[in-house]
Amino acid sequence: MYGTVKGVLTVPTTPVRQASVRAHNLALVLHTVANSADRPSRAAVAAVTGLTRATVSALVDDLVAGGLLVEVAPPPRTGAGRPAVGLALSAAGPAGLGLEINVDYLAACVVDLTGTVRLRYVEHADQRPADPAQSLAALGTLAARARLAAETGGLTVAGAALAVPGLVTSGLVRVAPNLGWQDVDAVAALRAVPELAGLPVTVDNEANLAALGELRVTGGNPTFLYVSGEVGIGAGLVLGGELYRGVRGWSGEIGHVTVFPDGRPCRCGARGCLEQYAGQEALEDDVPLAAAALGIALSVVVNLLDIPVIVLGGAYAPVYAALRDGIETELRRRVLTAGLAPVELRAAELGADAAMRGAADTVIRAVREDPAGWMRRTAAAP
Amino acid sequence: MYGTVKGVLTVPTTPVRQASVRAHNLALVLHTVANSADRPSRAAVAAVTGLTRATVSALVDDLVAGGLLVEVAPPPRTGAGRPAVGLALSAAGPAGLGLEINVDYLAACVVDLTGTVRLRYVEHADQRPADPAQSLAALGTLAARARLAAETGGLTVAGAALAVPGLVTSGLVRVAPNLGWQDVDAVAALRAVPELAGLPVTVDNEANLAALGELRVTGGNPTFLYVSGEVGIGAGLVLGGELYRGVRGWSGEIGHVTVFPDGRPCRCGARGCLEQYAGQEALEDDVPLAAAALGIALSVVVNLLDIPVIVLGGAYAPVYAALRDGIETELRRRVLTAGLAPVELRAAELGADAAMRGAADTVIRAVREDPAGWMRRTAAAP
Repeated sequence: MYGTVKGVLTVPTTPVRQASVRAHNLALVLHTVANSADRPSRAAVAAVTGLTRATVSALVDDLVAGGLLVEVAPPPRTGAGRPAVGLALSAAGPAGLGLEINVDYLAACVVDLTGTVRLRYVEHADQRPADPAQSLAALGTLAARARLAAETGGLTVAGAALAVPGLVTSGLVRVAPNLGWQDVDAVAALRAVPELAGLPVTVDNEANLAALGELRVTGGNPTFLYVSGEVGIGAGLVLGGELYRGVRGWSGEIGHVTVFPDGRPCRCGARGCLEQYAGQEALEDDVPLAAAALGIALSVVVNLLDIPVIVLGGAYAPVYAALRDGIETELRRRVLTAGLAPVELRAAELGADAAMRGAADTVIRAVREDPAGWMRRTAAAP
Repeated sequence: MYGTVKGVLTVPTTPVRQASVRAHNLALVLHTVANSADRPSRAAVAAVTGLTRATVSALVDDLVAGGLLVEVAPPPRTGAGRPAVGLALSAAGPAGLGLEINVDYLAACVVDLTGTVRLRYVEHADQRPADPAQSLAALGTLAARARLAAETGGLTVAGAALAVPGLVTSGLVRVAPNLGWQDVDAVAALRAVPELAGLPVTVDNEANLAALGELRVTGGNPTFLYVSGEVGIGAGLVLGGELYRGVRGWSGEIGHVTVFPDGRPCRCGARGCLEQYAGQEALEDDVPLAAAALGIALSVVVNLLDIPVIVLGGAYAPVYAALRDGIETELRRRVLTAGLAPVELRAAELGADAAMRGAADTVIRAVREDPAGWMRRTAAAP
């Protein structure tokens, strides 16, 4: 009666192309090595992936030739038999250039494929008197220096990602209130730096990148709010392992959450914004007030979103111990479900570097997700 | 070289069972009829689904026999040829029983498969002096009356869903502060009512159900915050067409968002909660203050989540015109991105009925998603 069935099963009608199968399998092998606790042999990779040993060997050869994997001494073993050569991610291959421009510093770091920070430059300087072009020129110089140092050291910088304290849409910094920026094309400015020629460049909100950095480093609860305390305050909201950006990419503006409706005037034009009580400058003046204001704003987030974990980063990380009690007092008082399940509060593991680490990580992750693309591009380069 | 590929393509190794294909196709045909602008013929359903006409005819016969579809006069047509019989959802088949218990009323409605409200009972009575058992007994009586009336009218109530103003976890009402409830098993209480015997019963937060009701009726922007103004205030957050419930199902507690940190004491133990300024009782006292407090709380939501649309429901819907200006003034002042894109504010289309409508809709939706299961259960019933 129902023998003829259409529109129910989706059966591919064209064979999967060999090139895309190879690309998929290269990523699969790289991923398997990256996620192994020890240094797996080719045989171990074959066992995990279900690919034949011959296929794995050919793929590994390509990844070694492409500078993505290295063959290393095997892990010590107690059993009999000749130990196999182990595989590891290369620390001398592609690297990510993470950049950050914030109100009172410029920063750059280079992170290799293994996730290790290979160099880190921070230049403390108030950017508010500078116009966007001046700040970006200074950052370009820092980035060029970092790229040169990394490549002198044998790495190949695969791309750069910039963290900014502002609203970013489609690569454009729409507003960065504390920098005084409006509609700044930071990507074009960095691409125009001669020493960065040919480098893919992206830009994103600093708290979003910091939240991603924290997610990847800690691997803990995949639902949390990351709060980045700088002169301004931003937040990155990670729901079930994914960054929630909002409909237009403008989520996380916790610095402009109202805590005292008739309170201090804010640079944004409103009154009583969190930033005026718990931004870096207010924090230096009055830690208890900063903690209470943070606690009030965070209680709002928990009441609205049922977020189980809050991570304090940026300038908050080093003074976490001094802030904790004041914040927790307000959370206990104001979160409706505080009696059912307490909110977990902790300092960011990456401290003040989270945003640029997260930025560099987006570059590394792109290479790890498409090693075939990376190898093709570098083979084609002059 | 990569000729042998394993672990890449997922190919089903066992044939899909006929029964599950039939179940899938029954739902597909029902869905196609439900989503047609006019009353489609069997041939039109075949064309849309890609199933053969013979298969569609057999499936339609089953759905008509099962009381889910009816054959109706065809839409008027100007062309030549004998017009085909049209198909429509049955208004005399399964129906959903939507229930609501709130601080100052009990309510029940029956919604048929076409989404039409067939009956609606509201009993205004303050539930705060009652204990949970008394409120649930009164609601059980109302529900029994609604079921009887619906079945006398030829409908078959397929299930009941209850909306409550509180935190719900795994079918248990953990806390409903304005009712004074704690750990109440409302589902068990309703199942124990003899006239509701055999009926599947579920319970959920009223603002969540109202948000779902609104999403289905309006079919507009799939990302919005629904705010339900009752004696307490709840919110349902719909992100990309999905209700965001939070990690433990406790999201949306906007009534306990702090608006004035040192303000009026709240029943929850905190101070300055939105509920104390914009709950139904405060709203009756001072509309401008309620609007300002709502505007402050909603600006927080938009700053945190980049929500483009806010829908005001419950007691707010009828006084929307009086609230609008006051809310919009605060949104313009306090939302960082207000100058880039204004927030759309509107009254709920379903007004005060949204929660019980949303509740009834969850029952109807379950039938529409699994008509085979529904027909199997009713065929097996004595």
